[in-house]
Amino acid sequence: MSDKSSVLPKPKKSVALSGTAAGNTALCTVGRNGNELHYRGYNILDLAAKCEFEEVAYLLVHGKLPTAAELNAYKIKLKALRGLPAAVKTALEQLPPSAHPMDVMRTGVSVLGCVKPEKDDHNHPDARDIADKLMACQGSMLLYWYHFAYNGKRIDLETDDDSIGGHFLHLLHGEKPRESWVKAMHTSLILYAEHEYNASTFTSRVIAGTGSDFYSSIAGAIGALRGPKHGGANEVAFEIQKRYDNPEEAEADIRERVGRKEVVIGFGHPVYTVSDPRNEVIKQVAKQLSEEQQNTKMYDIAERLESVMWEIKKMFPNLDWFSAVSYHMMGVPTDMFTPLFVISRTSGWSAHVIEQRIDGKIIRPSANYVGEEPRSVPAIEDRV
Amino acid sequence: MSDKSSVLPKPKKSVALSGTAAGNTALCTVGRNGNELHYRGYNILDLAAKCEFEEVAYLLVHGKLPTAAELNAYKIKLKALRGLPAAVKTALEQLPPSAHPMDVMRTGVSVLGCVKPEKDDHNHPDARDIADKLMACQGSMLLYWYHFAYNGKRIDLETDDDSIGGHFLHLLHGEKPRESWVKAMHTSLILYAEHEYNASTFTSRVIAGTGSDFYSSIAGAIGALRGPKHGGANEVAFEIQKRYDNPEEAEADIRERVGRKEVVIGFGHPVYTVSDPRNEVIKQVAKQLSEEQQNTKMYDIAERLESVMWEIKKMFPNLDWFSAVSYHMMGVPTDMFTPLFVISRTSGWSAHVIEQRIDGKIIRPSANYVGEEPRSVPAIEDRV
Repeated sequence: MSDKSSVLPKPKKSVALSGTAAGNTALCTVGRNGNELHYRGYNILDLAAKCEFEEVAYLLVHGKLPTAAELNAYKIKLKALRGLPAAVKTALEQLPPSAHPMDVMRTGVSVLGCVKPEKDDHNHPDARDIADKLMACQGSMLLYWYHFAYNGKRIDLETDDDSIGGHFLHLLHGEKPRESWVKAMHTSLILYAEHEYNASTFTSRVIAGTGSDFYSSIAGAIGALRGPKHGGANEVAFEIQKRYDNPEEAEADIRERVGRKEVVIGFGHPVYTVSDPRNEVIKQVAKQLSEEQQNTKMYDIAERLESVMWEIKKMFPNLDWFSAVSYHMMGVPTDMFTPLFVISRTSGWSAHVIEQRIDGKIIRPSANYVGEEPRSVPAIEDRV
Repeated sequence: MSDKSSVLPKPKKSVALSGTAAGNTALCTVGRNGNELHYRGYNILDLAAKCEFEEVAYLLVHGKLPTAAELNAYKIKLKALRGLPAAVKTALEQLPPSAHPMDVMRTGVSVLGCVKPEKDDHNHPDARDIADKLMACQGSMLLYWYHFAYNGKRIDLETDDDSIGGHFLHLLHGEKPRESWVKAMHTSLILYAEHEYNASTFTSRVIAGTGSDFYSSIAGAIGALRGPKHGGANEVAFEIQKRYDNPEEAEADIRERVGRKEVVIGFGHPVYTVSDPRNEVIKQVAKQLSEEQQNTKMYDIAERLESVMWEIKKMFPNLDWFSAVSYHMMGVPTDMFTPLFVISRTSGWSAHVIEQRIDGKIIRPSANYVGEEPRSVPAIEDRV
């Protein structure tokens, strides 16, 4: 393997540990030459063009692209894992409609970890089975809670859909999704699946490094992904887009906001310097979904803002920007955008947890001390 | 402030990011000169000798040692926060007796985050209130579940105990704890409260760095603390000690195991090189509790193993070693040792989350790539 460190982007000041290697990985390269992304050596554009999400999940979690027979068996396995234990359902029923869907998913994973705990010896086949279980049932968790919290309805979690994305749309809308939407979900989930040592993945590795269990790692990662500087950005991107009625209004307002130094979420990236390679793919998905429905309003607004941001700030949209349009066109409520990211990224998180376990190290950095010098504890009556 | 980096211990190979600063902190120095620990400039020995745990929690979360009036008000506040919403109780009732108590605590915190979410603007007073709520009610969560799961009993969570440690013992044993035990809990919780960028604290900071909510940070940290290389070590330490009936048997067996290169949990530390300054304090606590009950069996075994490990390996016990004896002498079940660590360390985690928010950075390291070079995605029929 050749040394490619010379082409890594420069450390960014707004990012702690930027450019500092916290470990090894065989899972992903990102941002070399400013705009590439590879999973286990496969270019993201190649994967998105040729694969279904389940093939990429298999690649990440099980180590190789599946043969036709392996893919078939994997889909049968995943389909059988969609249900939830009664204890998980009852726990989800306690969460109010006002709960944040990411908090619901973090809780669902945590409860499942109490009910079906990982075996203590952390053997890897068990870890991979838990990864598959989580990818298969996270959509069930979210949508079971959703229909119960909003309508008091206990939905059936078994569907005969062929894919994780199809299952999600089926439970959300209560009917079998059209083929073009299932295909769009495959593409979107592939694009979100893995991204090296991003903050949520790094969280899962720090937790795994202490020897903790699989569910703790994933629940922690969900908590990290929730933040608006990370996975939460796709929800914020849509909040921006839906402020406007047409591209002209959007352009005028964004020019004014950028003039006021306001940050526009959905643009730029801590690792990519030239462009986000995933943007062209998800933009095409957003376009197709919009044209199919003869409703290009949100797409036109998003595209205009893309042009304007490039013109005035030389900033490019990241994956979140047109993902927001795509999910909206499939009728996904805004606060389920990041949960879809969870379902996809669980494949990457799981692969990293397994990798960290094999590495065997605890992750324990130091800190620069900027506090008080040594001092005595005053008696309580002498304190002010 | 003078530069003390020259006296930091050398990086350790079994620890990723060892010796690498991942950020700033004003909360703690640890391991300078090989065996010191200070919280906000106060020596741990001074704090342990003069303070109650609530004073130290106030110091960490609220920034200063409280006056008598502030401490009084703080205790009244904490006392009022011991209860749990009905939804949290019902969710805890779903968790089976076989659940790991750390998984129960992670779940309880996660559910509370759904029911009483943090306000979106992340203003700091709200964060500090959540920190106080969590310290006050984490013991309630664990023990509510414990009595329900094992005996089907829904216990009352309101006690009039003066302290967090006293409340815990009261709920555990169903009676007001004796004064010496309450004092021992103060000392133990003070010693466990804070330890710079250890793996669980670092987890809480990585999660906080994405802009996520307070509960996500703490739930993630609980998941990290659970690992046997981190907080889980105090449980493993006791498993070792209780293998033996007397010091002679213990000594003979440990000599043999060390000869076989077996690692003895509870000895050595990734940051301290000379000794763990907390050991002398907790050892004294363990001794007093044992003598008071005229039962020094476990203490004698632990002390003998301390001498032997020093003689043959020049290894010193860390805080976990005599904490295990102390908790055992207060009738705390082994798998509640790490949950007590959670209750204490929530003070440190909370202070770090607040500090990371003020710092405003996302934590996003890089990785060394050790995987496949770029390759094409083969058609599914060509895969093997």
